[in-house]
Amino acid sequence: MRKIGALIFPGFELLDLFGPLEMFGMLAEQFTIRIVAETADPIKSYPGPMILPDDLTSDNQDYDILLIPGGDGTRREVDNDGLLQWLWEKSAKAGLVASVCTGSALLAKAGLLDARKATTNKEEFDETTSNGPSVHWQKKARWVQDGRFFTSSGVSAGTDMSLAIIAHLHDLATAEQIARWAEYTWNRDPNNDPFFIAP
Amino acid sequence: MRKIGALIFPGFELLDLFGPLEMFGMLAEQFTIRIVAETADPIKSYPGPMILPDDLTSDNQDYDILLIPGGDGTRREVDNDGLLQWLWEKSAKAGLVASVCTGSALLAKAGLLDARKATTNKEEFDETTSNGPSVHWQKKARWVQDGRFFTSSGVSAGTDMSLAIIAHLHDLATAEQIARWAEYTWNRDPNNDPFFIAP
Repeated sequence: MRKIGALIFPGFELLDLFGPLEMFGMLAEQFTIRIVAETADPIKSYPGPMILPDDLTSDNQDYDILLIPGGDGTRREVDNDGLLQWLWEKSAKAGLVASVCTGSALLAKAGLLDARKATTNKEEFDETTSNGPSVHWQKKARWVQDGRFFTSSGVSAGTDMSLAIIAHLHDLATAEQIARWAEYTWNRDPNNDPFFIAP
Repeated sequence: MRKIGALIFPGFELLDLFGPLEMFGMLAEQFTIRIVAETADPIKSYPGPMILPDDLTSDNQDYDILLIPGGDGTRREVDNDGLLQWLWEKSAKAGLVASVCTGSALLAKAGLLDARKATTNKEEFDETTSNGPSVHWQKKARWVQDGRFFTSSGVSAGTDMSLAIIAHLHDLATAEQIARWAEYTWNRDPNNDPFFIAP
């Protein structure tokens, strides 16, 4: 059983978080999901719906997998030193760290992606990547794995990445079964990036 | 500005709800999202994360669009006469009613789909369709539109349907732009059902 710590903050993007959690959640005997926030109040997502955390960052829990969504709120959180410190400490103890969309801005700003390959979304590529000048940013990628760090491209790409993580931790057949249950057409090739536009 | 009433209940499936709400949420000037539940307590989704409602069914609000997710909890809610009554009354006032996955069991049990074409997910097809013996169930469909009722196939199909609803209410270019922002490969053909298995 692996414990997933899924971070939320005001202005996180819904599908960045709940696409992957849908896929992990279908393996309830393999993954426990904990929603983590800095405060116990309901957290308002960018489109509006409010989510309650299960754990606080101050609880100082460790997680086997960290999942960091993107969203407009990352623009504020890149300057949240307390949260970046938490990310640094918890990433050191996690077996796997994954970000979706602009969530990679937080990992980059915390210094966790330095000298690693990583990606992020297309719309905010320049702004996001400015948070990690020492990161080897990949503009054409559905997702990128570098060691125990997985970073995905924009929003929906996180769902494809989450199935790749399931295949990585379990096997391809399990990931394919999950995709079938969710009636999800899995883009399983990290280099197949339908949204890349050549410069 | 259209007001979306997105129903939640214990055991609703995350992606059924948040895939569509991601897409509608990108048009913040066109759609207001209200999460609706029977009780003010946080509602636990099937995989675990807890969501807070914005409105209660007892508030007796009307909505332009009703969005009904599926999930294991629909097995209980098909016997919840109060909720079915609310669905009946609010559907009469809504311009558009949409269900994802086994959410169509609730619409069917409320009698709203009688003599209409509709679909649902593959895994629970026989159980779900037993709630609507007078519904013209379509086993091969990504989603089905019959008048102002849209019903989608399993989980991820709801996201494709939501973009079709955006195209229906606005235009194709708007839906395509939303899909691009979300880096989502939209299956835009309601008859292209990759998960249909011929009997």
